[in-house]
Amino acid sequence: MFHDARFGLARHVTLPGPLRLDGGGELAQVEIAYETYGTLDAAGSNAVLICHALTGDQHVASTHPITGKPGWWARMVGAGQPIDPARHFIICANVLGSCMGSSGPASVDPAMGVPFAMRFPVITIRDMVRAQAMLLDHLGVGICRAVVGGSMGGMQVLQWAATFPERVQAAVVIASAARHSAQNIAFHEVGRQAIMADPNWRGGEYYRMDDPPAAGLAVARMAAHITYLSEAGLTEKFGRRLQARDAKSFGFDADFQVESYLRHQGISFVDRFDANSYLYITRAMDYFDLAEEHGGLLANAFRGTNTRFCIVSFDTDWLYPTSESRSIVHALNAAGAAVSFVELSSPFGHDAFLLDVPELNAVVDGFLKAGEA
Amino acid sequence: MFHDARFGLARHVTLPGPLRLDGGGELAQVEIAYETYGTLDAAGSNAVLICHALTGDQHVASTHPITGKPGWWARMVGAGQPIDPARHFIICANVLGSCMGSSGPASVDPAMGVPFAMRFPVITIRDMVRAQAMLLDHLGVGICRAVVGGSMGGMQVLQWAATFPERVQAAVVIASAARHSAQNIAFHEVGRQAIMADPNWRGGEYYRMDDPPAAGLAVARMAAHITYLSEAGLTEKFGRRLQARDAKSFGFDADFQVESYLRHQGISFVDRFDANSYLYITRAMDYFDLAEEHGGLLANAFRGTNTRFCIVSFDTDWLYPTSESRSIVHALNAAGAAVSFVELSSPFGHDAFLLDVPELNAVVDGFLKAGEA
Repeated sequence: MFHDARFGLARHVTLPGPLRLDGGGELAQVEIAYETYGTLDAAGSNAVLICHALTGDQHVASTHPITGKPGWWARMVGAGQPIDPARHFIICANVLGSCMGSSGPASVDPAMGVPFAMRFPVITIRDMVRAQAMLLDHLGVGICRAVVGGSMGGMQVLQWAATFPERVQAAVVIASAARHSAQNIAFHEVGRQAIMADPNWRGGEYYRMDDPPAAGLAVARMAAHITYLSEAGLTEKFGRRLQARDAKSFGFDADFQVESYLRHQGISFVDRFDANSYLYITRAMDYFDLAEEHGGLLANAFRGTNTRFCIVSFDTDWLYPTSESRSIVHALNAAGAAVSFVELSSPFGHDAFLLDVPELNAVVDGFLKAGEA
Repeated sequence: MFHDARFGLARHVTLPGPLRLDGGGELAQVEIAYETYGTLDAAGSNAVLICHALTGDQHVASTHPITGKPGWWARMVGAGQPIDPARHFIICANVLGSCMGSSGPASVDPAMGVPFAMRFPVITIRDMVRAQAMLLDHLGVGICRAVVGGSMGGMQVLQWAATFPERVQAAVVIASAARHSAQNIAFHEVGRQAIMADPNWRGGEYYRMDDPPAAGLAVARMAAHITYLSEAGLTEKFGRRLQARDAKSFGFDADFQVESYLRHQGISFVDRFDANSYLYITRAMDYFDLAEEHGGLLANAFRGTNTRFCIVSFDTDWLYPTSESRSIVHALNAAGAAVSFVELSSPFGHDAFLLDVPELNAVVDGFLKAGEA
């Protein structure tokens, strides 16, 4: 446990299991790396759980220990922001399957004394949420004032509301979906195949080598990164502009700025992420289909709920387009749940939930304060 | 020269050069593999040139020699089809840079006696068109009644109309664009990086090895293939349906039908295509910007033209969306050209130009016959 340079507390806990998993297996113990900001009030009523996206982590509002960059959601979480340690006890945990300290394929299998690698069990979004619930129990948090997340974080929020409705007063689901579409699965499969095609992947047994499957993971990241941006945003940011040279090279260097940008995204990603974790987390997302768990009808996931919902989409997000949010809203309406829904306009595509979109902060701030009044 | 099992003539010619290239280099000689269907009439007035797409070939209406599949555009070219050997002399040539018999990186460099590999010069769409013009000269075809193509084929059609306007009576541009967008370039760059990350690529020097960079090329094809389909089309065709198993495997096999389909697309592609050709042709497409060649104004490419244009887009094509076709139409209007434009409705995305869309055949048929009246 160390005190973060800003205001977070970075912690790690090993919780006794077993955690039974949707796939039939179990984890004998569950490691969770997490951060907290603020203080739980005497009534234990001010907890806000933040759920992170595919390649996110627990450093929601603290400097990332590897990249040195600010927390990934410092625009939303911090002093004077909608989620504020002055009034909230904020918790963000690295998801199960990831690589920033929580149990995942890079963790040492206690039974064998070596990293799990591909012996780590395939997990689901619900398994991630169950692990978070164990953490909240450990922290003495019964009910969350809000559970908040974007993208895969939003899937966890929906799963929280479906699995532990009595523990979620308010749910904020941003740029997300209640199931992965065929196109979503297809893009993830390209990424997985890129990793598994890299000879350095070695069936996942690369942890004791010096050469992880960096090239494959970089290609996976590049393909995914395109889906996070809008066509209009890419055109505005890069268009067909060339690199510093004044003319085309008539070669295969990165002539266009967008090529150089993408290569950088791929290369820098491999410094902070584990290829096997990428396989496991994309698989969990592909398996996600909240309706399927509830007899094929999404509304069934929310019947009788007292949770208030806030659903936000972005007009240029083609990864989880507004139509996906609208399906969630229809199901919530059918279930008689309290829901507010807004489609925000932004040029940034899916990535908008991480970027400077003042309307998003206004929406989340207003929704949370309405529940605290 | 051999007679095709159906009605095409598959031919190969080596034309004396030098062919000077946009990149500054030249080819001492140009090999062109092509097919023809029908007979050139006495007036030499009935030639129709078909331009193929990125991974297409000259086998437009004849059985593919490797896959054994029917010609890639047998729906458009053939007896009773809009382009009909009974009234047209139909020519389709493998583009420069490709791997089905025309000069490309797999060709033997006559100066060195070994395959060019990455010593093959980087080429442009205009270079492809110049090579086609050499072929037409060789065949005694001065003027084309029509030049027709979809996707990259449409780019060649536009380039033909801009570079050799007096040789093109009618131009049919389907599901195409006058320049490659940042997003288009980005997807191609992912494919190139996937190939070049494959250790079997060996800087392009794999021709005398038994193990070409198949895994990298398959990943490139998978990523590209997603862009050829619409989200709605993928959902309709596959949705979240599982393979023959009744339940998820909780592993990394292809659980979903869409995964299995994509893997098959990748694996079968490597049997018929050369990885280096994929690099060169995607590069040519990325470099394509017809306005740039004409002082930044697309209309300048067509001033004074007598060519009649037919521009077709598909409503679910997000690779070359209707907005790109509309830009072409605006430029043609500004140049005072005769142009008809239609956006067709189809669930198939970009691939619609290759599939069963009766309206497309009706549009092309009507447009060509209007010019033949």
